[in-house]
Amino acid sequence: MSGTQLIKLRPISEIANELGLLPEEVEHYGPYKAKITLDVLARLDTPRARYILVTGINPTPFGEGKTTVSVGLGQAFGRLGLRSIVTVRQSSMGPVFGTKGAGAGGGAAQLHPFPDLALHFTGDLHAVTTAHNLLAALIDNALYHDTLPLDPRTITWPRVIDLNDRALRQLIVGLGETTRTVRATRFDITPASEVMAILALARDYRDLRQRLGQIVVGRTWQGQVVTAEDLGGAGAMAALLVDALKPNLVQTSEGTAAFVHTGPFGNIATGASSVVADLVAVRLADVVVTEAGFGTDLGAEKFFHLKCRASGLAPHAAVLVASVRALKVQGGKSVRDIETGGEDLAALEAGLPNLFKHLENLRTFGVPAVVAINQFPTDTPREIERLAQAAREAGACDVAVVEVFTCGGEGGLELARAVLRAAQEPPAFRPVYELDWPLERKVEAVARTLYGAGAVRFSPAAKRQLDDLVRLGYDRLPICMAKTAQSLSADPNLLGRPEDFTVEVRELRLFAGAGYIVVLLGDIQTMPGLGRHPRAAHIDIDEHGRILGVS
Amino acid sequence: MSGTQLIKLRPISEIANELGLLPEEVEHYGPYKAKITLDVLARLDTPRARYILVTGINPTPFGEGKTTVSVGLGQAFGRLGLRSIVTVRQSSMGPVFGTKGAGAGGGAAQLHPFPDLALHFTGDLHAVTTAHNLLAALIDNALYHDTLPLDPRTITWPRVIDLNDRALRQLIVGLGETTRTVRATRFDITPASEVMAILALARDYRDLRQRLGQIVVGRTWQGQVVTAEDLGGAGAMAALLVDALKPNLVQTSEGTAAFVHTGPFGNIATGASSVVADLVAVRLADVVVTEAGFGTDLGAEKFFHLKCRASGLAPHAAVLVASVRALKVQGGKSVRDIETGGEDLAALEAGLPNLFKHLENLRTFGVPAVVAINQFPTDTPREIERLAQAAREAGACDVAVVEVFTCGGEGGLELARAVLRAAQEPPAFRPVYELDWPLERKVEAVARTLYGAGAVRFSPAAKRQLDDLVRLGYDRLPICMAKTAQSLSADPNLLGRPEDFTVEVRELRLFAGAGYIVVLLGDIQTMPGLGRHPRAAHIDIDEHGRILGVS
Repeated sequence: MSGTQLIKLRPISEIANELGLLPEEVEHYGPYKAKITLDVLARLDTPRARYILVTGINPTPFGEGKTTVSVGLGQAFGRLGLRSIVTVRQSSMGPVFGTKGAGAGGGAAQLHPFPDLALHFTGDLHAVTTAHNLLAALIDNALYHDTLPLDPRTITWPRVIDLNDRALRQLIVGLGETTRTVRATRFDITPASEVMAILALARDYRDLRQRLGQIVVGRTWQGQVVTAEDLGGAGAMAALLVDALKPNLVQTSEGTAAFVHTGPFGNIATGASSVVADLVAVRLADVVVTEAGFGTDLGAEKFFHLKCRASGLAPHAAVLVASVRALKVQGGKSVRDIETGGEDLAALEAGLPNLFKHLENLRTFGVPAVVAINQFPTDTPREIERLAQAAREAGACDVAVVEVFTCGGEGGLELARAVLRAAQEPPAFRPVYELDWPLERKVEAVARTLYGAGAVRFSPAAKRQLDDLVRLGYDRLPICMAKTAQSLSADPNLLGRPEDFTVEVRELRLFAGAGYIVVLLGDIQTMPGLGRHPRAAHIDIDEHGRILGVS
Repeated sequence: MSGTQLIKLRPISEIANELGLLPEEVEHYGPYKAKITLDVLARLDTPRARYILVTGINPTPFGEGKTTVSVGLGQAFGRLGLRSIVTVRQSSMGPVFGTKGAGAGGGAAQLHPFPDLALHFTGDLHAVTTAHNLLAALIDNALYHDTLPLDPRTITWPRVIDLNDRALRQLIVGLGETTRTVRATRFDITPASEVMAILALARDYRDLRQRLGQIVVGRTWQGQVVTAEDLGGAGAMAALLVDALKPNLVQTSEGTAAFVHTGPFGNIATGASSVVADLVAVRLADVVVTEAGFGTDLGAEKFFHLKCRASGLAPHAAVLVASVRALKVQGGKSVRDIETGGEDLAALEAGLPNLFKHLENLRTFGVPAVVAINQFPTDTPREIERLAQAAREAGACDVAVVEVFTCGGEGGLELARAVLRAAQEPPAFRPVYELDWPLERKVEAVARTLYGAGAVRFSPAAKRQLDDLVRLGYDRLPICMAKTAQSLSADPNLLGRPEDFTVEVRELRLFAGAGYIVVLLGDIQTMPGLGRHPRAAHIDIDEHGRILGVS
């Protein structure tokens, strides 16, 4: 509500009205933000939109501009006279005060109101933080009053905070009370909360409530699971999340509708916006553009296996975002060499196999793919031409050059037309694994089929955890693979299209409420730290309460 | 936004309109909540309302119903055709999941929308939590990167969370990094945050920004103060608080306007609602009813010395809430005896000196007092009569029996008329101490004049802290006395009107941003715990997302 906007925003009520929402389905948060009540799901029970996934090649330090392309594509559909909605996830406040800033698109293809979006927004992350920490307080309270036979060594439920705070990575709590309460634990950043994962996957209030109750926080002394339901916390957690489950309606630079809703981590969770937002969007719009974080090996894989399974939706087509300079990184060039090097067809050529693998993965999922070449001023016509030609040869339905950062929706018209042509047929999505497969086979399927791994090895600890999950009956859950985004493999240094590598499963974690098993293939940092010079120091307000310096 | 309301609420836009607010000054949070932008302070630069303080005798386990009387009085003014606004503070979420529930009035004199008010409301407490913890993260980050010569032993800035979480009272953070980062610290509950105190006292954005910068978090190795400004955190904290500084407009059971804004602790902070809300309210209304927590020794004392000093406002009259049964507790009767005992004029008589002292205190401040007898079904006519007569004899301008819990505004008409008669003259408020007095003299003045203490003693630690504060130039600040609310003294067991007791000052704490020195007269618990059976277990939602069990 408190932004310094350079562009003129449309009243959100006008946008809600154009989407066919009834006034009583729209809860205003100031003039430019609104929550949509879930009543709309009962009123409009049939999805009608073309549903478009935006994914990308493996990310590089350049940034491929997936959010910018998603926003620009939504704008382009609007210019074609279609009712379009973009659905993207909300960013955490940690990076806003840290080093990265908020991910809200950019240039002429950005989400507004900014910086509201990057700060409290409509309070959903705070609701997740509070619900999560309420359960933590109930756990420690049960230890203090000794009201449950909970083995403190087995407690896996951390606390969370939506800030980068390194000092909270490892701590000892409960000092100064009884010895029963003293234990080591940690804070994660809020997007890593299982409560966030649940909010992102829940279909409605009943589903939300049930998933919260199923959260497993530890074990009894006899080895049985202890759930949020056992602790009497699930109902109160749900009460704290009632408003947070309602999608947030905002707008793009061109006044197109966007839902910015939930912000789950991209490794131990889906990294995609909410199921509920998409369920609402496909009922209201002609075309829905949704973004999944990272590449087809990570973001799209989870989008398909976790989010689509939860929502029952499947995409009509996918946009694979690539850029010349990012592919040069995949070809082994350094960022500095690329920035200063000019045309380099050989480097581009060396990086193309990365693109090919992502196209292959989308084909495996049965989804038509359009390659979006996000153009940058340093790209040469010959480089663009070579990339387009290679993408076509590798099986892309179509290729389009986009310039949405500078031109807005106008710069995405070619892509929008290509996507509409590709999205004619009903979805033919097929998963890479089935739920009734053994857990190892699920992991093997993803690693071999989508990453291109030659072998999968389970560490001794992971094997024990596997046996335990089977014993407790959690082996029918889907998996959530946690690995680096930078490589198709689990090794961030293996660029391009690595082959015949071995993937090692280090650890399994049960997210019974979110409804999956996290499979860790590497160290996952769930609490970022601040750098030597945090961005916080450059943020301020003026005497009128206008916010300065948030980016 | 998600409440189960039994009464029909009015659209908040209608109430805002009746107050003369312009549409662009009102930021909606759903249909029943709104924030008022501070632009209204510039548009209407003259206070016009009668400004009425509601305070009470020392609280007892019965609850005197101060909030209920405040709300009912506002409703009564409305029935008299006056434009009235009630200003009260927001409750914390800790008690909602703990044992106490939220303080939002009751019966036919309650604040709505409920339970929104008791949960996230408009996110202000979350904003305070985040701004507070951002500064904590910057402190530990400075230790980690060694970017400031901050002596870790001197750090007084805790973290905060808006939950009752006993396990966070004492903890060790920063493990697993460098040894520089390992230190003992604590979490307080959010109302105890100095950021909350600042938000409650700031007059505008400039004042907010400046106060945040002045927060002292610790000392350098050379003994100089380290501020939030030094850490580069004050601007970002202000950015997080931009919306939180805007008063929240809600309504009472009868559709009267109410501002529910900020929730500072009643011992280490003012315990009253915000300066900004009152500055706005007195410009919009004919009469403003504001509540200060606890009795004249604690809540009203801070209201006068801290809040009125910050706002520049002074009350035209005060309402002193008393009840027959509470005065019997002050007379030494047990709660059980009172509940079962029937008429007991002797017990009432024994408790009256407590009332007399509070009337004397209001006289000392120069404020006309009306005693409001909050009537309960167990009261007998002779008890009511005796209480009324004694109050008149002790110097009350007037006495009125109120029945707002059962009758709403109708049950407060007599009180409203009495208050209007008492509030004819311009305010003649005078403080008990001046800012240029030495700190010890300020403490003496409050303790002797308002508590009735015979002597004040400073502990050796407090004496050292006193010298240090003088050395650093903070001795011109007002004081914020932190003591039990249950007694006029610092000993909760001394009921009635204790005299000739000695008050011991244990510790002084510098709240440089809030602009006062906290003077601790006893142990102050700044992080409540949960009981054996937390209320959280009785809270739930239904399939439509309606919240159940919050009280």
